[in-house]
Order: sequence, then structure tokens, then C-alpha cells
Amino acid sequence: MSEVRRLCENAKAASYVAAGLSTEEKNAALRKAADALEAAAAEILPANEEDVRLARENGMHPGMVDRLLLTPERITKIANGIRQVAELPDPVGIVEEDFTRPNGMRIRKVRVPFGVIGIIYESRPEVTADAFSLTFKTGNAVVLKGGSDAIHSNTAITQVLRHSLEASGITPDVMNLVTSTERSAVDELLTQRGLVDVVIPRGGAGLIRHVVDHAQVPVIETGSGNCHIYVDESADLDKAGPIIVNAKTQRIGVCNAAESLLVHENIREALLPRLQQALNEVHPVELRADDAAIGFLSDAVPATEADYGKEYLDYILSIKTVGSVEEAIAHINRYNTGHSESIITEDPAHAEAFLKGVDAACVYVNASTRFTDGGEFGFGAEIGISTQKLHARGPMGLRELTSYKYEITGNGQVRP
Amino acid sequence: MSEVRRLCENAKAASYVAAGLSTEEKNAALRKAADALEAAAAEILPANEEDVRLARENGMHPGMVDRLLLTPERITKIANGIRQVAELPDPVGIVEEDFTRPNGMRIRKVRVPFGVIGIIYESRPEVTADAFSLTFKTGNAVVLKGGSDAIHSNTAITQVLRHSLEASGITPDVMNLVTSTERSAVDELLTQRGLVDVVIPRGGAGLIRHVVDHAQVPVIETGSGNCHIYVDESADLDKAGPIIVNAKTQRIGVCNAAESLLVHENIREALLPRLQQALNEVHPVELRADDAAIGFLSDAVPATEADYGKEYLDYILSIKTVGSVEEAIAHINRYNTGHSESIITEDPAHAEAFLKGVDAACVYVNASTRFTDGGEFGFGAEIGISTQKLHARGPMGLRELTSYKYEITGNGQVRP
Repeated sequence: MSEVRRLCENAKAASYVAAGLSTEEKNAALRKAADALEAAAAEILPANEEDVRLARENGMHPGMVDRLLLTPERITKIANGIRQVAELPDPVGIVEEDFTRPNGMRIRKVRVPFGVIGIIYESRPEVTADAFSLTFKTGNAVVLKGGSDAIHSNTAITQVLRHSLEASGITPDVMNLVTSTERSAVDELLTQRGLVDVVIPRGGAGLIRHVVDHAQVPVIETGSGNCHIYVDESADLDKAGPIIVNAKTQRIGVCNAAESLLVHENIREALLPRLQQALNEVHPVELRADDAAIGFLSDAVPATEADYGKEYLDYILSIKTVGSVEEAIAHINRYNTGHSESIITEDPAHAEAFLKGVDAACVYVNASTRFTDGGEFGFGAEIGISTQKLHARGPMGLRELTSYKYEITGNGQVRP
Repeated sequence: MSEVRRLCENAKAASYVAAGLSTEEKNAALRKAADALEAAAAEILPANEEDVRLARENGMHPGMVDRLLLTPERITKIANGIRQVAELPDPVGIVEEDFTRPNGMRIRKVRVPFGVIGIIYESRPEVTADAFSLTFKTGNAVVLKGGSDAIHSNTAITQVLRHSLEASGITPDVMNLVTSTERSAVDELLTQRGLVDVVIPRGGAGLIRHVVDHAQVPVIETGSGNCHIYVDESADLDKAGPIIVNAKTQRIGVCNAAESLLVHENIREALLPRLQQALNEVHPVELRADDAAIGFLSDAVPATEADYGKEYLDYILSIKTVGSVEEAIAHINRYNTGHSESIITEDPAHAEAFLKGVDAACVYVNASTRFTDGGEFGFGAEIGISTQKLHARGPMGLRELTSYKYEITGNGQVRP
């Protein structure tokens, strides 16, 4: 039996144990796991050093190496993240509906764990601990497949967490790490029908696409964000400027950063030169503008059709001129990825048209797209941002890591 | 451009129109469509006769021909079904959560249509109208791919409904029927990423499996039901008998019929001979029993391991003896399809263990599995029974044909 199959079978068996744990048992085990992780820095850091050394040898981009790197402070931060999850309310067992049918049958709709969750991610060792804490808190078993470049770090973290679970009297098989670095291991995980209840990919567009194309188990798509800001004719420019600067430059590599600006033709002249200056005060931003906008900018380059479909994740912003809020909505619905879209307007009718008309997980009026985040929404934690419409949309917190079942109690009812 | 691609693009454009319709507009259009369908019996019935004639020529099983057949009464029944959907509450626009963050941003979680729903089904023309009414009521556009044997009936029904939509001033592209009878048309529908938001297959295990294996768009699995009834040591046999007879024989070809009986070893003698008699009073049922049970039955055949995994959809019942409720739960979690499971017991602790421990959409105590149905749950209508855990589980009514979005209103907030 392959490693992936074996881990999925172990996880399935363990999922029934996890589903039966009380909130107190789960929280106690999480706190113990956090302590264990901090106490094991001396084991985890050398493993991480090995990953970092190999990554540098292989010429990994410094930004990626930084994501891979662990320090004592980062390990404490990871442990504190686990402690925070222990503090959050447990969605499992919540009775969402409770009604009695005319024949006397009582039907309750109850939140339950999914069972086994697969998580596929890139070389970010903190995800190993995060994903464990969120899935365990929600009574699930997890099978993790992290990026190969982080294999030593992930293995060390997993060993510590599994030992800690055992010390808590809980089967360590609620947490499983695929150690095979073969690419086929991913595809195997994606086809474990009957064992894996859902797979959540976390990473770039290529990873997500691969997962969607090859999965035979249910998938929640996450993270691809071609986010727009539309500045309406009626916009307050004192709001527009700071919001665009924030959405574009506060953190460029994230899915809720703005990638494209739509501007009403009547406000081009008032907005664009001032915006360009404000952006440049933070960081030079390459502007790729259409013919109708480019004349109001200095050093802008002409935008191509392809630009409007791009998630740059860089100091680049495409700019498109529109004649109405309807045109803005149509453009966004054509090019967006269902993530986060914002309108800057003082016209309540335009705000409402935008809120209703734009097809995205999070639609904003007069606020930055950067707020699409479980923490910013008050969820306490998040496993990712869903860009699909099935099951969960936008930031996914603990509740979104659960399903429901109907519990029906009768006294001998049969169907007439 | 292929027919499927064209219809999906039309549906996508129409979905924005459908999403913007008021409940009153949708209800009025549904009532008009119901009237139009009844008035068009003279067009629909000859088309259906053609399908039935060809089906008989091709040697279709009489039970299947009956599912295909339309009569004036059946058309009225279909029209009344549409009228009923018009009476149901509209989930679209319901604000499920409404909260304000410390920075003043107001976040509302609002029910919205999916957008474009693909439905793939077998040769049952009434599904064409049902699927239209449910998806239209929830503000979605639909692309239907019905069984090739019903192509004339489906085309006639679709034409009537599309003309009626036009008469209501609504783009008929909210309802689309794939007329290609090539099998590749199904696979094309399953890969329309960016156009189709979810596909729901309705049909037998082969159809479902094909859809799951080939889909690159999100899928809701439906309808496969290997349902068990476990008779506990503490069972009231006056409840057990009628429930098992009902679940096995009331309608054999449906997904919520019982396929397997688990019996506690201490109650075999009291239950089995009496049950066999009760079953035979309704219809002869072939019993396939394990060694521990077979001695209490007359003319039973030995059950093989394969029997426990089978959805017979026939007058056949497998029987397995267990020593405890825990053993029953473990057996069910190994063999079931996540549909409906029932325990017959007078022991509250065993009932609770079963409700919590069995992994299925609907778990019953002292009631027939045949109640797993949108109508029986009081949902008014259903598009199918989900056997997966993502998005929806069990009977799917109107609410399950919608997603949600977050509408966020601010006054210039940026992320610190």
C-alpha cells in the first residue's frame, strides 16, 4: 500500500475518534501541542536550517526562502496561533435547526466535522501547524501535503505534534504528513474517494489549477485574486486615494491586493495624477492604462487585453476607463476571480448596484479589498479564502471546516 | 463554438439578469410558465409519443418507459409542481449575518444565487420542468442535459418554457437545454470553468461516478443510497417490523430504501422469523444472511462480503449479525454511502451513540429511512439528496441552490 493510501486510511479511522472528542479535550490537546512545539525548538530549527540550506543551494528566490525560514520567534508565533485556536468557539455540535414534522418526527440539523480533510500547500512550514490546529479544533483528521522544499521542517513539526497528541491520549493519526516528495503523491491524495471528504489547496494559481483538474474528491478553490477598485463619478477622492494606495501597496504578494483600477471617465482628471503621486510616495508602481486614461498619467504604459486578466502580485496596476457603474460591473464580472471588489462612491444607488451586481465573495463600498481575511472579519483564524461558490465563500474560519447532518428521532414512523 | 459552450455563455449572461429579478417577478413568471405548459399539451404529447415509440423499438425496460411517458394528467402534475415552487419562500437576499467591525465596517452575509447550474439527468422529462422551476426560483440560470431517449419531450418542454419566459419579458437564456446527444456533450459541460458554478448529476451510480471523475467544475454528488437499519438488543419489535418492511418494500427503486439489516445477536430469534413473514405478506424478499442469522430464516441465501456494499434497488435485503451498537456503527461507516441510516432501539444511550457515530446525511432513531426527502422534511421541493459533505447534505431544497456573498460597507477604511 502506498504511503498516501495508508495515511488516508489511518486518518479515516482517526476521524471517528476526533469527531467524538469534547471541546475541552480538543482545547487541552491544542494547548499541550503549542507548549510542545515551543519546547522542541531545538529539534525543529536544525531541520529547518537544512531546508533553508538546500533551498539556497537550489537558487530559491529570497522572498520564498524567507517564507521557509523559521526562527525561535516564529516558532513562538506559531505556538501562540495554536493557543488562539484553542480559545475560539467550537462549531461542532451546534444545532442549527430543530423542528418537528406533523407525524411527530423531530429533525435536528447539527454541525459535524467533515471527517478527513486534505490540505495541499507550498513551502511554508507554519501552515503545517496552522492546518493541524484548525482541522483538529473542528474534530477532523487531516492529511497534509506540503511543498517538498519544507520537508525537513514539516516532518519535525509533525513529529512534535503527533507525540504531543499521544501524550494527550489521542491517536496521533488525526494528523498525517505525506513525506513522499513525488508529484504523484499529490494526485493520489486527490483521488482517495471514500476516504478524503474535501481537499483544500493553498498556494499559487498553478497549484490550484492542478488540484481542480485532477481531483475526484470535493475541492474548495482558494486564493486566486484579481481584485478591482472602481472609482465612481461621485467618489470622494479623499477616500479613493488612500484606499487604492492601501489595496495596491500595503502588501503586494497577497490575494486580496488590488490588481486593477476602473475609473469613471468624468473623474479621470481629478483622480489619476493625484493617485499616481500618492502611489509613488509609497513605492514606484507601474501603471498600465487604456487610451482614455493614459494621457492623465506620466510614464504609464498602454494596457493590453491580457493585463485585465492578470493577478500581478507586484507593484503593477492596470487602469481601465468606464462610462458608468454598469460598465464597471460588467468588466469586473468578466475578468475577476470571484475574490474581492470595491467601489468608491458617494452615490447610494451606485453602491447598491455594485453590491448586488458584482459576482464576488466580498464586495466593498468605500473600503480596501485588503480586509478580506478571516482575522479582519473577526473569525479568529482562517484556513484560506474561497473563490468558489459551493460550501464556503470568502474567508473560511472554523465553521467552514465543518458540515452538518440531520439527526431524526421518531417513535415508529413509516412513510405512508 | 460548440453548442454546450454557446449555451453556457448564454446562461452566464442571463444569470446576471436572473439574479436581479424580484421574488414577485420570478413567481409571476413561474405561474405563467405552468399555465403555458398545460396549454401546450398538444405540442408536448406528440413529441413524447415519438420518444416512447423509439424507446420501445430500442427495447427499453418497461419501468424506464413508464418514467419517460407523459400523459395529460402528468403534464398537469408537472405544472402544479411549478405553481408550488412559486409559493415557496425565496432564499435569495436573506441577510444571514450582519455585524460591524471595530473599525466601523459593516459586514453582511447575504444569500445569492449560484449563477449557472448544470444539471445532468436521465430520461425523465418531468425533471426538465422541475429543474427549471427550482433553479429559476433561486435566481439561477440553468443548463440542462437530459437523457437522449427523452430528447423530443425535453425539447418540446424547453421551447414552451422559453417562450413563456419571453412573454414574461425575461431572457429565455435562463433556461438552456443541450440537444446534442453525443456523450462528449456531458464532458464538455463538466469542464466549463468560469461559466458553470456547480453541476448536479441526478441519476444512477454510473452517471454520478462519470460526472465526479470528469468534472473540473464543482459537483454535488447525489442519490447513491446503501441504507441500513440496525435493530438493537433493546428494540421494540412492534416498531422494528413495520419500519423495516416500510424501508425495504414501500418503493424499492429509490435511494432511501433500506438495503441491509443489522441485527443484534440477542434479538435474532425474536426478530427474524417474524420479520420474514411480515415482508412476505407484502412481497417476496430475497434475504441474504450471514452464518449467525441464516438459521433463523427459511430459504435465505448466504451473504457474501460484496452483498454488504450493494445498493440492490430490488426486493433483496442483506442481513448481518452484530454484537453491539458499536459494531453496527463501524459496519455502517465502512459500507454506507452517506445517505440514510436508522437504529431501532429503546435505549437512549444507544440511540445517542448511533446518532453521533454514524457518518451519514440523515441518521434516524425509530423511523423509516424512506423519510429522507425534501417534501417529507418540509422543504416543499427538492433537487436531489446530497451524499457528500461539501455545501449541502441530505435533501436539497431551494436554500441549497444558493450561495452567499459578503457585502461590506465602509467610509474610507484601509488596512493598517
